[in-house]
Amino acid sequence: MNKTLMEKIANFVAGIKFDDIPTAILENALPCFIDGFGCMLAGALSPVTAIRASLASKSDREAHAFLPNPFMTDVPSAACINGISAHYEDFDDVSIVLRGHPSAVMVPTCLAVGEEQKSSGKKLLTAYIIGVDVADYIAKHINPEHYSIGWHSTSTLGIFGATAAASYLMGLTVPQMANALSIAASMSSGLKGNFGTMTKPYHAGLAAEQSIIATYLAAAGMEANTNIFDDPAGYRRAYAGEDMEKRDIPDLSWETSAFASSMLSLKPYPSCRGTHTAIDATLFLRETYDLKLEDIKKINVYVQPIAADIVTYERVERPSQGKFCMSYCVAAALLDGTVNLDHFSEAQIQRKDLRAVMDKTEMIVDLALSNGEYTDGTWKARVEIVLIDGRKHEKIIVDAKGEPSNPMSTKEIEQKFLQNANRVMDQSSANETLITLKNLTSIRNIMTLSTDIAQAMN
Amino acid sequence: MNKTLMEKIANFVAGIKFDDIPTAILENALPCFIDGFGCMLAGALSPVTAIRASLASKSDREAHAFLPNPFMTDVPSAACINGISAHYEDFDDVSIVLRGHPSAVMVPTCLAVGEEQKSSGKKLLTAYIIGVDVADYIAKHINPEHYSIGWHSTSTLGIFGATAAASYLMGLTVPQMANALSIAASMSSGLKGNFGTMTKPYHAGLAAEQSIIATYLAAAGMEANTNIFDDPAGYRRAYAGEDMEKRDIPDLSWETSAFASSMLSLKPYPSCRGTHTAIDATLFLRETYDLKLEDIKKINVYVQPIAADIVTYERVERPSQGKFCMSYCVAAALLDGTVNLDHFSEAQIQRKDLRAVMDKTEMIVDLALSNGEYTDGTWKARVEIVLIDGRKHEKIIVDAKGEPSNPMSTKEIEQKFLQNANRVMDQSSANETLITLKNLTSIRNIMTLSTDIAQAMN
Repeated sequence: MNKTLMEKIANFVAGIKFDDIPTAILENALPCFIDGFGCMLAGALSPVTAIRASLASKSDREAHAFLPNPFMTDVPSAACINGISAHYEDFDDVSIVLRGHPSAVMVPTCLAVGEEQKSSGKKLLTAYIIGVDVADYIAKHINPEHYSIGWHSTSTLGIFGATAAASYLMGLTVPQMANALSIAASMSSGLKGNFGTMTKPYHAGLAAEQSIIATYLAAAGMEANTNIFDDPAGYRRAYAGEDMEKRDIPDLSWETSAFASSMLSLKPYPSCRGTHTAIDATLFLRETYDLKLEDIKKINVYVQPIAADIVTYERVERPSQGKFCMSYCVAAALLDGTVNLDHFSEAQIQRKDLRAVMDKTEMIVDLALSNGEYTDGTWKARVEIVLIDGRKHEKIIVDAKGEPSNPMSTKEIEQKFLQNANRVMDQSSANETLITLKNLTSIRNIMTLSTDIAQAMN
Repeated sequence: MNKTLMEKIANFVAGIKFDDIPTAILENALPCFIDGFGCMLAGALSPVTAIRASLASKSDREAHAFLPNPFMTDVPSAACINGISAHYEDFDDVSIVLRGHPSAVMVPTCLAVGEEQKSSGKKLLTAYIIGVDVADYIAKHINPEHYSIGWHSTSTLGIFGATAAASYLMGLTVPQMANALSIAASMSSGLKGNFGTMTKPYHAGLAAEQSIIATYLAAAGMEANTNIFDDPAGYRRAYAGEDMEKRDIPDLSWETSAFASSMLSLKPYPSCRGTHTAIDATLFLRETYDLKLEDIKKINVYVQPIAADIVTYERVERPSQGKFCMSYCVAAALLDGTVNLDHFSEAQIQRKDLRAVMDKTEMIVDLALSNGEYTDGTWKARVEIVLIDGRKHEKIIVDAKGEPSNPMSTKEIEQKFLQNANRVMDQSSANETLITLKNLTSIRNIMTLSTDIAQAMN
């Protein structure tokens, strides 16, 4: 008899031991975990984080929320608060399969549950990998239809990865884990219609929070339809708009892991992924040619339709709009040689030099970039700098920095982490935190990790 | 400019005053509120209630969970726990428009928030009416497609009614209420694929809980897309499987209220709605003819396809299966002249006399009942009792007792309430509670209501 999707997941997860995980997977996963952790620190001061934190009550349960003034709260709330922070700056990693941001959900979930369970660093990293892989695995069965009709799969599918991770950390039996995943199916939510609002980062926190509640409920004896994915009246029909064709997806295994041969897509710049190829092209032109501002007549940024659909702001009136404004990102890259968190502040968006470059910059949809074809999921861009003397410099970038085919180096990832951590702690604490995280698998009880970090933030 | 669906809802709700509500609406709504309250008491000892309650922590906030051993917990958890109880016995009211159970979500939400806000009974009843009407109003725009593709609209649409009710009780501004509804759109969930499991009653609690969280978040400043219903990338597309045609739905008003000319469908028997017409027909035949068991050769129950789709158990091995077993319900009606909560116990399902009748009873799909047409939403049934001497008695029931066209009398509703309350308190406390609820609109601070009831349950 063919195994159900649920059985494939629950059986795989239940059988996992850290020592069986291929080294390459561990080596690819740890930098992503560290990157997600850094994004969580970077967003810890966000207004959305503060709003959700204001609802959380103090608790004597063993979980921290990594806030500027950390306090103990219940485990699901801690995961929710940290999840919001992790996604707030739109600086967190991307899975193309998921069409979403896995670490913003998995890192906070694993931390909150791991602290409660006094898990080891090895167990925590294992749970994180499970979370990313389970979310991707379900995505393989339901995307792109699911994402296309309006679901923010970071949340809707992320909840399953986080539930599998939490179930693993809590030591649920296979039947309990199946119930947890099915309860999670009745809690899966998050609409793309709320992109561009505070509710977008909330989606990541919501998935983390609800995954833990689903796991608690299953551990306490709640039962659900454990064939919810394959049931004709189940998840796929409601969440993909139609009865899905049976797809020939290999079983979940280390061979098919998101980390088997590469890292996830990591973002070098805290702006929409749709701006990254243009930023890279601009940085290339800046380094290659001796460009003087007064010599530049026009900057044309040719993009695929998918980028224009998301990078929608022509002007920047609020810092967050800069993340979705092509001319702002290109101007920052050209003038400062980088795009970083500091660019998205009230002071920076008022800069006259940036505005002068923005006035010369135009974003143009160019179907020829994809041979006339709308290629969803790639961000190919061409930047053309036209000089007053008539010369032109141009550069096409196919794979932005941070894509699996063009990965960030260890040094770049660490610099990004330190920049993120620096938002909530001093440089020396940031350095220490990075060292601690690089040695994650040697930590016996990750409660010490959060205690140290909470102290560093005070 | 045409108003958006969101504007129609938020503007209507914000302008409501108790004194403006037509008397007929108040008179139709109060019995439904009382009935929902009674169902909540009837289910308070359910295992699902206990599972969710085991996760709730004690709190000094002013909200009760009406448990056998009541304790104070946070407001959303109290609403969740009571919501599970209210839906557990499948004894709660039904809205045909919603295709779900509105009071199981609205009563617990209004109580929990009303207690926190120290609301009056008038305000509470107003919020309850708002909740039922807003859920129905959105259902008019999105059903039957929404329900058909797998959504348990009790939860997915119930959350909007509950959010409107909570926003009203908390005194949110119109823009805040719109944000709350849009945040709720990103939290709407609940799959029909989980029917028949513990997760079904949990859906009602989940909607109540999440509606309050959405309202808190909006009150604390969280923003969302306030055009989420009409946005092309918004709620309707994801939750109805397609871009919905614009429908010509009148504005929300008292004229269109679910309570304008009738009550909701109330259930006289704690079994699937699909069994009720057959139970009524059996009761009629029992009263009309002098039936002796030994004279009966066969009982044929002819039903529409929709009933056979839901009333699926042929045998009863667990009490809960009896609610979805036609021969069991018919046997109880024939032998005992009623179907009540006591029938769904371990002792009752072992009764030999019931099993003897069940062995003679058969459920048969009869397309002729709907002139060959599959009429979704009606439960027409014909019961035929064939005697050994060759005679036949038969009865067709079109509208079951409790439908708006065949409503339960005040006395029947009150007897049902007392029967329900009796599960958790003695007869005299039940009587007092009923009197208190009948005088709901004279209560100055409904905190006294829950305090009294909690004491009665001890």
